[in-house]
Amino acid sequence: MTLINCDMGESFGIWRLGDDSRIMPAIHIANVACGFHASDFNHMRATVRLAKQHSVKVGAHPSLPDRQGFGRREMKIGREELANCVIYQIGALKGFLEAEGMTLHHIKPHGSLFVMASCDPVIAHAICDAADVFKVPLIGLIETEHERVYRERGHAFIPEFYLDLDYSDEGRLIVTREHAAVDPDAAAERALRALREGLVRSVGGKDIRVGTETMCLHSDTPGADLIAAAVHKALGMDGRIHK
Amino acid sequence: MTLINCDMGESFGIWRLGDDSRIMPAIHIANVACGFHASDFNHMRATVRLAKQHSVKVGAHPSLPDRQGFGRREMKIGREELANCVIYQIGALKGFLEAEGMTLHHIKPHGSLFVMASCDPVIAHAICDAADVFKVPLIGLIETEHERVYRERGHAFIPEFYLDLDYSDEGRLIVTREHAAVDPDAAAERALRALREGLVRSVGGKDIRVGTETMCLHSDTPGADLIAAAVHKALGMDGRIHK
Amino acid sequence: MTLINCDMGESFGIWRLGDDSRIMPAIHIANVACGFHASDFNHMRATVRLAKQHSVKVGAHPSLPDRQGFGRREMKIGREELANCVIYQIGALKGFLEAEGMTLHHIKPHGSLFVMASCDPVIAHAICDAADVFKVPLIGLIETEHERVYRERGHAFIPEFYLDLDYSDEGRLIVTREHAAVDPDAAAERALRALREGLVRSVGGKDIRVGTETMCLHSDTPGADLIAAAVHKALGMDGRIHK
Amino acid sequence: MTLINCDMGESFGIWRLGDDSRIMPAIHIANVACGFHASDFNHMRATVRLAKQHSVKVGAHPSLPDRQGFGRREMKIGREELANCVIYQIGALKGFLEAEGMTLHHIKPHGSLFVMASCDPVIAHAICDAADVFKVPLIGLIETEHERVYRERGHAFIPEFYLDLDYSDEGRLIVTREHAAVDPDAAAERALRALREGLVRSVGGKDIRVGTETMCLHSDTPGADLIAAAVHKALGMDGRIHK
Repeated sequence: MTLINCDMGESFGIWRLGDDSRIMPAIHIANVACGFHASDFNHMRATVRLAKQHSVKVGAHPSLPDRQGFGRREMKIGREELANCVIYQIGALKGFLEAEGMTLHHIKPHGSLFVMASCDPVIAHAICDAADVFKVPLIGLIETEHERVYRERGHAFIPEFYLDLDYSDEGRLIVTREHAAVDPDAAAERALRALREGLVRSVGGKDIRVGTETMCLHSDTPGADLIAAAVHKALGMDGRIHK
Repeated sequence: MTLINCDMGESFGIWRLGDDSRIMPAIHIANVACGFHASDFNHMRATVRLAKQHSVKVGAHPSLPDRQGFGRREMKIGREELANCVIYQIGALKGFLEAEGMTLHHIKPHGSLFVMASCDPVIAHAICDAADVFKVPLIGLIETEHERVYRERGHAFIPEFYLDLDYSDEGRLIVTREHAAVDPDAAAERALRALREGLVRSVGGKDIRVGTETMCLHSDTPGADLIAAAVHKALGMDGRIHK
Repeated sequence: MTLINCDMGESFGIWRLGDDSRIMPAIHIANVACGFHASDFNHMRATVRLAKQHSVKVGAHPSLPDRQGFGRREMKIGREELANCVIYQIGALKGFLEAEGMTLHHIKPHGSLFVMASCDPVIAHAICDAADVFKVPLIGLIETEHERVYRERGHAFIPEFYLDLDYSDEGRLIVTREHAAVDPDAAAERALRALREGLVRSVGGKDIRVGTETMCLHSDTPGADLIAAAVHKALGMDGRIHK
Repeated sequence: MTLINCDMGESFGIWRLGDDSRIMPAIHIANVACGFHASDFNHMRATVRLAKQHSVKVGAHPSLPDRQGFGRREMKIGREELANCVIYQIGALKGFLEAEGMTLHHIKPHGSLFVMASCDPVIAHAICDAADVFKVPLIGLIETEHERVYRERGHAFIPEFYLDLDYSDEGRLIVTREHAAVDPDAAAERALRALREGLVRSVGGKDIRVGTETMCLHSDTPGADLIAAAVHKALGMDGRIHK
């Protein structure tokens, strides 16, 4: 059994990104942008409402402060400052959840912050400092600082597999500024292998161990809804997914 | 009996505004900036901590989205969009309150948003739409749309008097982009008269009716701490203030 | 003879708006966003390059400081501050024009700033204060403060007709936050009538006098390239347009 | 003979930083903030005017896009993107110089961008890509990528010594988020030794070779005007400085 999570609500002002209304029915968990890499107060409200309509659980998707770079630009930031940055964003999202009678389900850092937390324990600890306030599970990668630090700090940890991103030979995610299209059937096959064997092939051809409690899709990956459909079909035959 | 409230935490990044550490001991209630006209995630955390240290209650001080203009630039904004804008800011502040084990005490809009809400019922209703989520009292001016709409919508209303701003002949606050210095003794005398007679002299020489459940001071008014001290002295003799 | 001008380069960061590569070949003059309502340093560079490739002249399209509202939110702003705001944006655009060996062709304010300048002489004068620095023509509406103030201040004035926006009975443009689709053939017919008779029908059914030295199309109007094609076809038969 | 340069115009909106009106009379060259780490269109205009009044030459002081971190946060950014980022800022400043009948004197990157350009040739090349457009000298550190790349690319290079920052044992500047106070007499003595011997003592006690065509002071260093006065006094006796 696995759940599909998706980065959602990444429009900003007049600009649209991702076809949220087509993707929302196909996912179980939404990582909702909090205004720092994407979204704003209007899109956050709309995204929370759309999630509610489709019984999708909402987690916070906080980012480095970098809207123009979509949070995909690494930057140097200290632990205390980063914890504050993340608390601000999650608090703002909780405002909209309260407005809609929902609760916060989890936290999953966005983009470069996610990658930085997987390699740098100081960053992972800053995420935990923020999570201490909100007391919800953290989504991340097994066998990285995510798993090590989150567990050490006593947070519930949800291991995650990426449907539409490549893995480096060292088991890190390769985050690009804009996401390339992914073949839905290839993604579904990767998903099936990940679930059955707990393995994914890296860009250099190595087998990397992955956790699959949840599987991630990005709403700005071209054709995200088709990938979701292919994964549902492949895993549904197996009885491993249900929505 | 009256309480002094003060707009606090209005620094941003490297820039400082107001001498919060001198003012905090002299006030009862802090209206804390939420990052839209001033402050950021670091200053919000620090301001909440400082308030806690001095047993000062913390309210949200949400603004129009206008950091460069310090929220003192009027703009056209619709009811739903404004409600979302205010929910975002209050939610973010609540994150820091939760982090420090405190609760939200009240809501008081900042700058032009405060003035707009006093004249325009649509704006006052948008404030109420946000207050519906957080269920705390609203601070405002008597005999304006503040009092009328807030009470009609069933919100607790705290009438307020301004120690360091002038009133127009129509009873509106005159908000300038930067605040002029105010003589502490003159401010204290205004405060005393407001408390005893419920009146203040407008710029045109008219007597305006004011409420005095709380009295407002701005941390960016030059010598704000001296004004607070003079008011404490004048009202303390009267037994009308205590901290 | 008329020239088509179009608001171009209105993407921001990861977000795209308008299909500039399809529209650029169909227009004569581009009003290029300068980073305040849309665009950023990367999109500005790309837009200037695209214009150069298609021999399209580049003008500045400065806005009120309001990216989240796309410059379509009216705000109160003083003359000197607004002049500085506009100079900053035009200067930035000129940097990219210098980089590509091009020169600035004209200035045309964006969105609410355009509308405000058509009604409020103080705003129109602020635009002129900025134009004094750059000494290029200003595009605007006849029989409004645009024409009156720009001419009075000695600036070259280029009268403009709108292909995809409605006119109020008072002859003002009706600017909405997001543009509705427009039927290409209806737009072409409006254009032909405007050229032949100098008139357009308002939303209330009144005939409004319009100038047609140039005709404006918005890149964020759905199907903008189809409208351009229909206008070219209609006016080309007439020998009134050539590209 | 040496010239004092100072980072100027680093206020933002309502917030003030540095006492520019006291420092401007004591310096020869101003590095004027361009709105990305500090300043805005109003402060830029005022700073350019103040420089003009005191016959101070104006250079551009472009930054990484990071206002909340004051451009003192390192971030990953590609060469082309960075060149565009710098061109935007310099272009904007040139708008105000044109408005005041002045010309651009030099370019000197700010904060982390300055440090990154001293170590990373890709960053130094991006600075040159922008400088190619404006054709003015670049200020930097000798025996770093500044000197090596700027000269290789054919740009005029002005070697600089820092009056109020420490040097690491590797000869790099140590840039902190907020600047500590510096003893004016100690700074003057450092300046004198730098001029006479071309050397400065690093934090680890090593002698570092420095160029002294110009000497830098930061307007946000506490007591910057007193440091300038002490340096003028010490160097004036020597006939090495004149204003």
